[in-house]
Amino acid sequence: MRLIGKEEIENIAIGAALLGTGGGGDPFVGKMMALQAIEEHGPVKLLDVDEIEDDDMIVPSAMMGAPTVLVEKIPSGDQAQQAFKSLEKVLNKTIKATMPIEAGGVNSLLPLALAASIGLPVVDADGMGRAFPELQMVTFYLNDVSTTPMVLADEKGNNMVLNTVNGKWAENIARSATMVMGGSVINAIYPMTGKQVKESSIYRSLTLEEEIGRTIREAKQNKQNPIDEILKLLGGFKLFTGKVTDIERKTDGGFVRGMATIEGLGQDKGEQCYLEFQNENLMAKTNNNILCMTPDLICALDTETSLPFTTEGLRYGARTTIIGIPADKKWRTERGIEVAGPRYFGYDNDYTPVEELNRKAGK
Amino acid sequence: MRLIGKEEIENIAIGAALLGTGGGGDPFVGKMMALQAIEEHGPVKLLDVDEIEDDDMIVPSAMMGAPTVLVEKIPSGDQAQQAFKSLEKVLNKTIKATMPIEAGGVNSLLPLALAASIGLPVVDADGMGRAFPELQMVTFYLNDVSTTPMVLADEKGNNMVLNTVNGKWAENIARSATMVMGGSVINAIYPMTGKQVKESSIYRSLTLEEEIGRTIREAKQNKQNPIDEILKLLGGFKLFTGKVTDIERKTDGGFVRGMATIEGLGQDKGEQCYLEFQNENLMAKTNNNILCMTPDLICALDTETSLPFTTEGLRYGARTTIIGIPADKKWRTERGIEVAGPRYFGYDNDYTPVEELNRKAGK
Repeated sequence: MRLIGKEEIENIAIGAALLGTGGGGDPFVGKMMALQAIEEHGPVKLLDVDEIEDDDMIVPSAMMGAPTVLVEKIPSGDQAQQAFKSLEKVLNKTIKATMPIEAGGVNSLLPLALAASIGLPVVDADGMGRAFPELQMVTFYLNDVSTTPMVLADEKGNNMVLNTVNGKWAENIARSATMVMGGSVINAIYPMTGKQVKESSIYRSLTLEEEIGRTIREAKQNKQNPIDEILKLLGGFKLFTGKVTDIERKTDGGFVRGMATIEGLGQDKGEQCYLEFQNENLMAKTNNNILCMTPDLICALDTETSLPFTTEGLRYGARTTIIGIPADKKWRTERGIEVAGPRYFGYDNDYTPVEELNRKAGK
Repeated sequence: MRLIGKEEIENIAIGAALLGTGGGGDPFVGKMMALQAIEEHGPVKLLDVDEIEDDDMIVPSAMMGAPTVLVEKIPSGDQAQQAFKSLEKVLNKTIKATMPIEAGGVNSLLPLALAASIGLPVVDADGMGRAFPELQMVTFYLNDVSTTPMVLADEKGNNMVLNTVNGKWAENIARSATMVMGGSVINAIYPMTGKQVKESSIYRSLTLEEEIGRTIREAKQNKQNPIDEILKLLGGFKLFTGKVTDIERKTDGGFVRGMATIEGLGQDKGEQCYLEFQNENLMAKTNNNILCMTPDLICALDTETSLPFTTEGLRYGARTTIIGIPADKKWRTERGIEVAGPRYFGYDNDYTPVEELNRKAGK
């Protein structure tokens, strides 16, 4: 167990933006919420997965809807607590801790804000190890953890406990209720025993986010190249360096889809890289080679500051370094690739790990 | 306590149609559901209000959405039971009985069908003593009984426990969830202690419905005039007798609004009666007099068969006898009139009781 205070939150926010691979919502919103909650209620206890008991009840939390709406009207501690209490009654168990469902963007930090205001610890794990656009794209789902009972709560004091026959119904009913409730709610979802967390989650993702943030900051202080240090930390690959010369974006059914064209610089001069995204970056390729594909992580970093770009922040003229990071091994299974691999997103390519693609491309 | 079997259901269905004052959904649907459930599970226990204990937990049930959809896919006993169990966990109490929220149309009979399949008794009471178009138009609301926690369940096995800050939010969220869940759900709503039922409900409405049905059938057998017998039973007034010469109907926001024009026959010859409705009949008047207004009950009976017309069943050429029945005294209070009186429905008239209007009209 260790305590997460304001400095840790600053580092986690940077790491969350990087693992968010362009999506996951603006981590700035989550950061402000977490900082405010810690200011009011004190630091949050972070539990290692090994510190939870097999029969502890752990309930991941997240926000659903538009983060820009949420920031204006985050549920108070009382309201969140009441929502958790409704769920406890249905589960017939005391909730011992919460945790993130994704490691990326606002939903990495929201559980810390909630935990601070409710007085719960947070488990150092999540269900993606990155960000993904759909609710079933969690490692819990790969292990057949039930999405419900889940609870939704708004800032007005309304809440709802949902029991559905499958995750798709949970998504449909919760999505529509979110709209009626004002466009943005918090939810507590995929309630799990400690044993299920141990079997189905991605371990130590909050600590990894924090290390990413600290690595970037310390490398800058030590006049090292932060990108090289991150690649060492994450076992990643520098895929391409260049300048954004074209960007197309289309908002469609709640998703931002599009492509950035990057003109090579330095050793990539004369080549072009195409970065394709749907909320998150899904595919990076040149005219001759695929460089990296989902579920492996593709991050566009600002070549100057080494900080991650969101897909919405990527703009014409930006100098960017594209890096690829191997996904957690849970995503590299047959079922993981079926749920979040290239074919699921409509690509006519079999999944090939980034390390293999990198070897082929002769980088 | 007495048992409700198939014969009682037949009579209750007729009474429910009459107290439905033109609205409340087709009682035929509710009747078929109740008959089927009793066929499968045996008769239902009907408890008098005096037989329940002050601290018993009683949960009224109803359907929300389109009855024509529901009849195709009523939740099974298992699913309804699961929904009630979710609610019991949140209430932390065993539910002792269910009851109708309205005495009119499908929702008079649905609790009997549910009770048969779950194995619960039904309390002989309701929250309207008639039908009304909106969720807050219940005597429970006049006594400040909370609408939530409420539970919604569909036939697929999805259910939801809702806690809202007020009844309006419950209505909005539940209405939208109903659409997503397939257009029709059952709900358990306004959970109450036995004491609250005693204070806030309208007593013995199922028995009254049954008596209405039996009175009409027996009067026919005995060659008496069934309408006269009903007026004696209910303390009502014959307002107008005639033939429908014009009918306007507009479906708008889930409501059927409109007006029927009735050309007088017999002692009303030469006069016209205008029957205005919004799902339920709200106002009956001639060119010179108001004959009856909400919350008093206005029923259009078939002059030939003495059976009630729904507003949707009222058609050009139909011979009809319009009767007026004093509303329960709970509706004749200041708050009752505010919630369901003529001004709430947009009329520029103060409420005047039907017996007074009848005296004025010199009938």
